[in-house]
Amino acid sequence: MSLVFDHVTLGQRVLFGSGKAAENLAAEVARLDARKVMVIASESKAAVAAHVARKISVALDYDDVAPHVPIEKAEKARAAASAHGIDLLVCVGGGSTTGLAKAIALTTGLPIIAVPTTYAGSEATNVWGLTEAARKTTGIDDRVLPVTVVYDAELTLSMPADLSVASGLNALAHCVDSMWGPRMDPINQALAAEGIRALNRGLPQVKQDPSGLAGREQALYGAYLAAVAFASAGSGMHHKICHVLGGTWNMPHAQTHATVLPYVLAFNAPEAPDAAARIAAAFGTEDAVEGLNRLRATLDAPKALKDYGFTEDNIAEAVDIILPVIPASNPRQPTRENLAELLRAATAGTTRDR
Amino acid sequence: MSLVFDHVTLGQRVLFGSGKAAENLAAEVARLDARKVMVIASESKAAVAAHVARKISVALDYDDVAPHVPIEKAEKARAAASAHGIDLLVCVGGGSTTGLAKAIALTTGLPIIAVPTTYAGSEATNVWGLTEAARKTTGIDDRVLPVTVVYDAELTLSMPADLSVASGLNALAHCVDSMWGPRMDPINQALAAEGIRALNRGLPQVKQDPSGLAGREQALYGAYLAAVAFASAGSGMHHKICHVLGGTWNMPHAQTHATVLPYVLAFNAPEAPDAAARIAAAFGTEDAVEGLNRLRATLDAPKALKDYGFTEDNIAEAVDIILPVIPASNPRQPTRENLAELLRAATAGTTRDR
Repeated sequence: MSLVFDHVTLGQRVLFGSGKAAENLAAEVARLDARKVMVIASESKAAVAAHVARKISVALDYDDVAPHVPIEKAEKARAAASAHGIDLLVCVGGGSTTGLAKAIALTTGLPIIAVPTTYAGSEATNVWGLTEAARKTTGIDDRVLPVTVVYDAELTLSMPADLSVASGLNALAHCVDSMWGPRMDPINQALAAEGIRALNRGLPQVKQDPSGLAGREQALYGAYLAAVAFASAGSGMHHKICHVLGGTWNMPHAQTHATVLPYVLAFNAPEAPDAAARIAAAFGTEDAVEGLNRLRATLDAPKALKDYGFTEDNIAEAVDIILPVIPASNPRQPTRENLAELLRAATAGTTRDR
Repeated sequence: MSLVFDHVTLGQRVLFGSGKAAENLAAEVARLDARKVMVIASESKAAVAAHVARKISVALDYDDVAPHVPIEKAEKARAAASAHGIDLLVCVGGGSTTGLAKAIALTTGLPIIAVPTTYAGSEATNVWGLTEAARKTTGIDDRVLPVTVVYDAELTLSMPADLSVASGLNALAHCVDSMWGPRMDPINQALAAEGIRALNRGLPQVKQDPSGLAGREQALYGAYLAAVAFASAGSGMHHKICHVLGGTWNMPHAQTHATVLPYVLAFNAPEAPDAAARIAAAFGTEDAVEGLNRLRATLDAPKALKDYGFTEDNIAEAVDIILPVIPASNPRQPTRENLAELLRAATAGTTRDR
């Protein structure tokens, strides 16, 4: 088969080290020769942000952060940055905090150093989002890509183990779905496989020893790769299904993703032998689905959509909505019949090991 | 073990497709809104360059290219670019041609689109080189990184199969040595493993069917990844040894690399189980050295340093020179004894399968 792809690699520095956030941040502020730094963190992260920023001079501490970046919050933050002559944005937190920094960068062009405290992954992408009148707009602009990401697994220790595992499984779904997303290419696949490898190592350790750093490091590293691969490859079949289930039946996000993933993998694997082999190798198993199910068993992951309110009766309608949105890049042709079969199995929680 | 690394990802577009160079180049020229394009290619590549540039308007065709970028050639090319009001450099060729484009970009900041016709890999790095009074200076500057690389395996068909294989094995050595280079990190390792995977697929096909595109595509893709990983990780033990053998005993470059590589891999593998497992998986074998030797046998690669003029008598002196330059990052501690043993085996061509 002929090798044809377009791949855009986003240029970014990644400084990774537990307990090194303050030191790495200070080195980057010096390298960028920044004089007026705005540190963005939600109120609940104020102490963490102060700890991370203890080796730099801060011109403005900013905590008016809200989920989904309401446009009024963005405009207020832009005005604050302008009023203080800010020349560098530092965001310490999860997706909402990084999102606010991106909203400022979008109109001002100010550079961002991101210091993530979750597995959200926004720090590794050039995607921004803004919410106006309850409607979210997203876009792509290289100005919002943080120039540097400072990863410090100590900052993720405050995430409860169950939330970490759920969020890690979400990152895993990004990796797996990158294998057949609309802009999938072998570079994305290699990075996604490395993400699976790291999450497969890290998440069981996070569950077993939530206060240990080793698992947290692997999970954080895997979440970063998941974001890189998924932003490049785009949403595949898995995310299209979960989006419909979430949007139409209000199914819980993390549980839906964790439940549906092995069924999509089992569905596609026979028609995507190369992707399946990459996934299996990343899990260290002979078979991709076996590897995923082994990890899910270790993590005691959600098993059946029926446990979250989805029923057999919903399947026909779900198939109607899902069928037209499956990307053309999907390795196996979806039909009413095979999609219904997939959803029946996921609803019942029938194990599909191979 | 704690995960600590600094990784700089260089931002670049890669457009990969056989027979698509002219189309991809034209799309990029339009995207960059370039009006005055300078096309750089050696005389021997004039027809190829004309073919690749047939869909764009060319302000200046430039062919005064020489190996190692002599400073006089660089200055002349810079003056030509300036005289013609050039706003985009397009280089079609191997390392020397890309090198000249980089020399122009270094002082002018002009963007480069690289269209490689070999496996040199310079197009994927921010490394420049200039030669003045027979002395080569190299440096790193993001301005010399091509904004876009257009890969078209059809352009590599004119490389003879034996040269392609030798050059591909050189790329393979870059991948393997990236596993323990001084700036090695898991991202470099993942990209290097993907490079090994592609070269292991492609090179036997190039040898068997030199006019076929499938093998050429995989080899070209692998060579790109080798350059990305190696530029980031830096020279490891393998390259230090080969550099000494080449510099002191004038050993032929490609043959030395192809011969020494399995001995370095066998030397390090037991102390670098993670790297060894990545390499083995990339070869699709249980054991890394076994995978490499299987590929070398298929390619009928050079086997023993004694075939290229190196003798047992040279070993003691070689050890003296090599020992101090092995990077501290090397997973196994080199000693006079184990280095001498490695060189004895490589000189004799003793197979070290495991």
